[in-house]
Amino acid sequence: MNPANSELIVDEVRLTPILISDPPLLNTQGVHQPYTPRLVVEVVTRGGVSGVGETYGDGRYRELARPLAEALPGRSITDVNGLFRLAAEVCGDSRAVDGRVDAGGLRGVQTADKLRLSVVSAFEVACLDALGKARGLPVHALLGGRVRDSVEYSAYLFYKHAGRDAWGPALDPAGIVGQARRFDREYGFRSFKLKGGVFPPEQEIAAIRALAEAFPGRPLRLDPNGAWSVETSLAVARELADVLEYLEDPATGTAAMAEVAARTDVPLATNMCVTTFEEVPEAFARDAVRIVLCDHHYWGGLHRTRELAALCRTYGVGLSMHSNTHLGISLAAMTHVAATLPLLDHACDTHYPWQTEDVVTTRPDFRDGRLAVSDAPGLGIELDRDRLADLHRRWVADDGTMRDRDDAAAMRRLDPDWRAPATPRW
Amino acid sequence: MNPANSELIVDEVRLTPILISDPPLLNTQGVHQPYTPRLVVEVVTRGGVSGVGETYGDGRYRELARPLAEALPGRSITDVNGLFRLAAEVCGDSRAVDGRVDAGGLRGVQTADKLRLSVVSAFEVACLDALGKARGLPVHALLGGRVRDSVEYSAYLFYKHAGRDAWGPALDPAGIVGQARRFDREYGFRSFKLKGGVFPPEQEIAAIRALAEAFPGRPLRLDPNGAWSVETSLAVARELADVLEYLEDPATGTAAMAEVAARTDVPLATNMCVTTFEEVPEAFARDAVRIVLCDHHYWGGLHRTRELAALCRTYGVGLSMHSNTHLGISLAAMTHVAATLPLLDHACDTHYPWQTEDVVTTRPDFRDGRLAVSDAPGLGIELDRDRLADLHRRWVADDGTMRDRDDAAAMRRLDPDWRAPATPRW
Repeated sequence: MNPANSELIVDEVRLTPILISDPPLLNTQGVHQPYTPRLVVEVVTRGGVSGVGETYGDGRYRELARPLAEALPGRSITDVNGLFRLAAEVCGDSRAVDGRVDAGGLRGVQTADKLRLSVVSAFEVACLDALGKARGLPVHALLGGRVRDSVEYSAYLFYKHAGRDAWGPALDPAGIVGQARRFDREYGFRSFKLKGGVFPPEQEIAAIRALAEAFPGRPLRLDPNGAWSVETSLAVARELADVLEYLEDPATGTAAMAEVAARTDVPLATNMCVTTFEEVPEAFARDAVRIVLCDHHYWGGLHRTRELAALCRTYGVGLSMHSNTHLGISLAAMTHVAATLPLLDHACDTHYPWQTEDVVTTRPDFRDGRLAVSDAPGLGIELDRDRLADLHRRWVADDGTMRDRDDAAAMRRLDPDWRAPATPRW
Repeated sequence: MNPANSELIVDEVRLTPILISDPPLLNTQGVHQPYTPRLVVEVVTRGGVSGVGETYGDGRYRELARPLAEALPGRSITDVNGLFRLAAEVCGDSRAVDGRVDAGGLRGVQTADKLRLSVVSAFEVACLDALGKARGLPVHALLGGRVRDSVEYSAYLFYKHAGRDAWGPALDPAGIVGQARRFDREYGFRSFKLKGGVFPPEQEIAAIRALAEAFPGRPLRLDPNGAWSVETSLAVARELADVLEYLEDPATGTAAMAEVAARTDVPLATNMCVTTFEEVPEAFARDAVRIVLCDHHYWGGLHRTRELAALCRTYGVGLSMHSNTHLGISLAAMTHVAATLPLLDHACDTHYPWQTEDVVTTRPDFRDGRLAVSDAPGLGIELDRDRLADLHRRWVADDGTMRDRDDAAAMRRLDPDWRAPATPRW
C-alpha cells in the first residue's frame, strides 16, 4: 500500500458476541432456541473509520475469529483476497472439528474449512464496509456495481408454537396461510417458502396446497432440509408439481438429490449438498440441483458469492439466496451482493422479519417484498452501540445454554424424549 | 448513485485507433504485419478524472466500440457489471460476424460474443482505472487486493526473419537460443515459451531441446496454435516429456485436445479451445486441458478474469495468462488482476518486450522476469498524449492495409503463394 493509503491500515478489531431473541421456529432437527448467538466483527482503521460484519456466534466460530482478529492489525482493509490464506495460517489445525453437525444441523457435515469460511465472511464484509466508508463508495461499487436498484426477498414461513412473539402458532395449513397473509400484508413478499420436514409429508403437501389456493400463481417453495427418502421426495414432487417454484433439499446428499432430480421435472434447489466450492463439480456433473442457494457466510464472503454466481452462470444452474437467522448487518451485505448478480432470478430467502432485535439503528424497510439497494458509503448501515452492548450483556449473563445453537437441545426442553431424527425421517 | 458520487458519472468517452510497429514474428497463420492496430479507450468523468483501457483495433472491434462509447455518458464508472448488458443492447445484432476467423487466426472461430467481450474489457479497465484514480485506490484494491507484490512473466520466443528491429533473425535452434539468452539477460525471465507451428515439428523439437540444454531446469513451453494432428501432438509430447512445463494448444478443438490429454502426461494448456465461459464445461468434463491461459481481453475484463480463476480453482485446473500484441495499458491491467489471483502458478505470457512503441509515459521495468505491482491509484500509468497522437496519425495515414490484422496477408507480401494452412498442418 502506498503511504497515501496508510489510513486504510487496520488499527483494531473488535469481536462482540451477542444473543438475540428468536421465535420458536420448528425444523426437522428441533426448534430455534429462545436466543441465538451471533458474532459482530468491527474493523477500525488508523484513519478512524470502522466497518462491520456478522457471522455465527457459536463457540467454534468464536474460537476461529479470535486469532484472525489478532492477526489483522497492520494489514490493509483493501486486502480481502488475502484473508483466506491468513485465516488458514492463524486459525490453526481445527480438523478435530470435522464430522460434527453444524449449528442447527442443516448444513451437512461440518468441517474446519466451512467454519473458517463463515468466519472470514464477517471480516471480509467488515473490511468492505470500512473501505466503502473511507472512500465514499457503496459496497456494491466495490463488487463491480449494482445491476438493479432493489432486491426481492421471499417470505420464510415456519411451523411454530405460540411463543413470546407477535405471530402466534402455525401448526396446520390454516396457520401457515395466516402467517403468509401477514407476510404479504406487512412486507409485500411475492414468493413463499415453507420450512418443512416437521410434519409427515401429507400435512406439508396440504399446507402448500392451501398456500397455492390462497395465493394463486405466486412462487412457492418447500424445504424439508433433507428429511425425506428419494421415494418420498418423488411422491411430494408429483403431488406439488403444478404449484412449486422449486423443491429445496428434499433428500440428503448429492447422490440422493441426483436420483430425485433425474426422476422429476420439479426443479431442485439446495443449500445443503452444495455449500462449498469443493462440492460443486460432482453436484453439477450429476445434475443434482437446478438452483444453488448462495449464502455469503457459507461461501466466504461477497467476492466468493460472486464467484459462485459465475460458476452457476457457466454451468447453466440457477441462483437464489439462502438465509439463516441474521441481523441487519448481514441483510445489508446480502442486498449489496445480490444487487450485483445479473442472473439472480429467484427472490432471496431471509429470516430477518422473525428478528425483532437488531444492532443497526434503522430497520430495513421492505416495500413490495423488496429492499432498495443503498448507494450510501459502505453497507449503508449504522451500528447501534447501546443495543449492541445490551445484547452482549445478555450473552455475558447467559449460563452457557444459549451460547451454542442446538435446536435438538431446545426441543428437549419442550419434549424430554426428543432426539434429532436420522435421515431420511420419512 | 448518491449525489456525493455525481463526479463519478461518465462525461465523455474517447476512442483512439492507433497503429503500433510490430516485428515480423512468425506463427502458423503467417507473420505479424509491420504495424498492428490497437484501440485506446479513454473514459472521462464529470469530476475530470480519466481512465484508460486498450483492446484490439481491427474494424470489427471499432464498430462495436463506437455505440458503447456513445451509450456510456451519464452512467457511473462504478457500474462495470452493467457493461455486458449495455453492450448487448447497443452493439446491435452482429451475429453476421459469426464464423469468421479472428485477428491472427489464433482464437478459433470468431463470434459476436467474443468480439463484444474484447471490446467491453477495454471499457471495464478504463472505468476501473478512473475509479481507482478518483478514489485513491490501485485497481487491484478494486478487485479485492493483491496477494503478491510482483507478477512473474515469461519470455515469448518467436521464429522471425530479420526486420526493422534490434533482434535479428531466429529461424533455427541456435537463433531461438540466442533470442532466449537476450530475454534472459535483459529481462531476467525464468520461463520460455516458443511460438511454434511454423516449421515441421522435428525442427521445433530441436529448438526446445536446445533451450533445455542452454537453460537446464527452466520451465519451457511450446505453442503451435493447434497446427498438429493428435498423433503429431502425441509424438512431440513423447519427445519432450522430460523438459516441457506444458504443451500449449498442440491440436485444434476440445475433442482433439481431450484425445491428446488422455494419452500423455505432459500437461496441456490452452488459449484456443477455452476462450469463453460457454466453452468451459465441455473442456473441463473431458479433461481436455490442465491449464487455462486467461486473457482479460477475451474474457471480458478483470472481474471476469477473476471469475475464470474461480472456475479453474474449483475444478482443479491450473491458470496462467495469454498475451497477444499489446501496450503498457493492458500490461498494467494484466499485472493488477494477476496480482489478485492466489493460484496463478505459472509465469504469465506477454508480447510486451517486442513492442518498442507505447502510449504510456514510463515503460514498465521487468526485474528478474517480474513486474512490481503498482499501489498507485488506478492502473498506475500515465498516458503520453503526444505519442498517442503520433500513433493515431499513422493510423489515419494508413491506406487501409494495416487497419485489420491479417497475418496471412502479411505473409503474402513476402511470399505471394502463401495461403494460411488448414489444420492440422502436420
